[in-house]
Amino acid sequence: MTLAESVAALPLRVLAPGEVWLAGAGPGDPGLLTLEALAGLGQADVIIHDALVDARVLALAGPQARLEFAGKRGGRPSPSQQDISKRLIALARSNLRVLRLKGGDPCIFGRGGDEAIALAAANVPFRIIPGITSGLAALTAAAIPATVRGINHAVILASGRTAPADRDPDWAALAQTGQPLVLYMALANLESITATLIAGGLDPTTPAAVIAAATTATERVLISTLEHVCSAVRAAGVEPPAIVAIGQIVAVREAVRGGAAPGGPGAAP
Amino acid sequence: MTLAESVAALPLRVLAPGEVWLAGAGPGDPGLLTLEALAGLGQADVIIHDALVDARVLALAGPQARLEFAGKRGGRPSPSQQDISKRLIALARSNLRVLRLKGGDPCIFGRGGDEAIALAAANVPFRIIPGITSGLAALTAAAIPATVRGINHAVILASGRTAPADRDPDWAALAQTGQPLVLYMALANLESITATLIAGGLDPTTPAAVIAAATTATERVLISTLEHVCSAVRAAGVEPPAIVAIGQIVAVREAVRGGAAPGGPGAAP
Repeated sequence: MTLAESVAALPLRVLAPGEVWLAGAGPGDPGLLTLEALAGLGQADVIIHDALVDARVLALAGPQARLEFAGKRGGRPSPSQQDISKRLIALARSNLRVLRLKGGDPCIFGRGGDEAIALAAANVPFRIIPGITSGLAALTAAAIPATVRGINHAVILASGRTAPADRDPDWAALAQTGQPLVLYMALANLESITATLIAGGLDPTTPAAVIAAATTATERVLISTLEHVCSAVRAAGVEPPAIVAIGQIVAVREAVRGGAAPGGPGAAP
Repeated sequence: MTLAESVAALPLRVLAPGEVWLAGAGPGDPGLLTLEALAGLGQADVIIHDALVDARVLALAGPQARLEFAGKRGGRPSPSQQDISKRLIALARSNLRVLRLKGGDPCIFGRGGDEAIALAAANVPFRIIPGITSGLAALTAAAIPATVRGINHAVILASGRTAPADRDPDWAALAQTGQPLVLYMALANLESITATLIAGGLDPTTPAAVIAAATTATERVLISTLEHVCSAVRAAGVEPPAIVAIGQIVAVREAVRGGAAPGGPGAAP
């Protein structure tokens, strides 16, 4: 049985007219897409995607699918969360098969929960399909195991960007846990975040990694320390999207890279 | 283009003889398998899997593949981590295409890092392929968004089971962060973990969910509070594998479930 035949034989779910699937597109590499998300791409009449969904993933959409972009582009403001939810509801009520596709996992700093609540309140049937979250995919791409026995019992996924109305995360409390941090959207506030972590008791020499555009052709990995990571990012001119990992797990990278396959574990194709 | 055709057209990687892929099988539902893991199943000569890999996923192995079980079964002790690593190295050195398949993500409490280090030290080429980690898949299956604006800026994935040689996690410090906890393998120690979290300052009335066998036919979801979750687990007779989520995100479930598709978001097929 070929790969294609085994996929064809799978009892994948049907995206019905009038229904919305909120699906994760994973970090970029289409090989990290789930079979359900791929099934959604093949069935959808309309696909509402954000800027972090890789072009190679969107290329898997069926010929009937109309692509709609819902994100920031060219400095113009992105549609508000409320506008996106309204749009999803309107499309479903037009009896279309709707795929809402988000980079990574829809519920890890992706506002998937807000959209789900709006759909539920409007009585639109929907399903949430998890995706490989970018933070964990970035660690793997950089050959950094998220958990290592003897080093950590937990891993903390945190957002480096908060809405104006929200309080900042309690970085000092997060530092006190002694567990590695995996920061999403952290470049803009990295200076203040690292300073607060150090003030909160985290050793300035703690290893830190920056993984930009993980699993894409422009992937970059930068290894530094908590105290030097900001200047390293500036010197290298790293651009978003990027994941910042802080903790002793980063130091395990060298041992993992020893004999990795050409391109390294999880490297872009 | 059918789903099968679009998979056939993808430039998926080749699992070469003498190479090992350490891949995540996701939580159970084969629809949550990645395309790369599926490609590995189709190409492998031998598949070394643990107890948490779903039978529906193993059924996707190619006809040439020999399945080898490396986990606990029938009370007999499981092979040691060292034995498994040695076995992977020996199989690769026999010039076989080796797929090491683990439930969830190989590097989230899965010892994938240990195996990668052993393979690297033995100069065996390998690749790590992330999977949908069971904790995040369980939240989605239970209609609980992992992050919700206004509620949390971080989510903590933690192991409820530690090796005898390891120190226990600092549950009090984790409680102090105010961020939701997603506990893996937590049922055995749940009494002491919840007591320590309460002693550490976490409100005993904090919502808690137990999600057993997420995305399988025997999935069960139990909603309780931090102080009552242990007795609820006992009363309901919940068995491992289970994920325990603790935090205000659990309370968002009702709003998300309002209009979910039949079976609920992420429900088993």
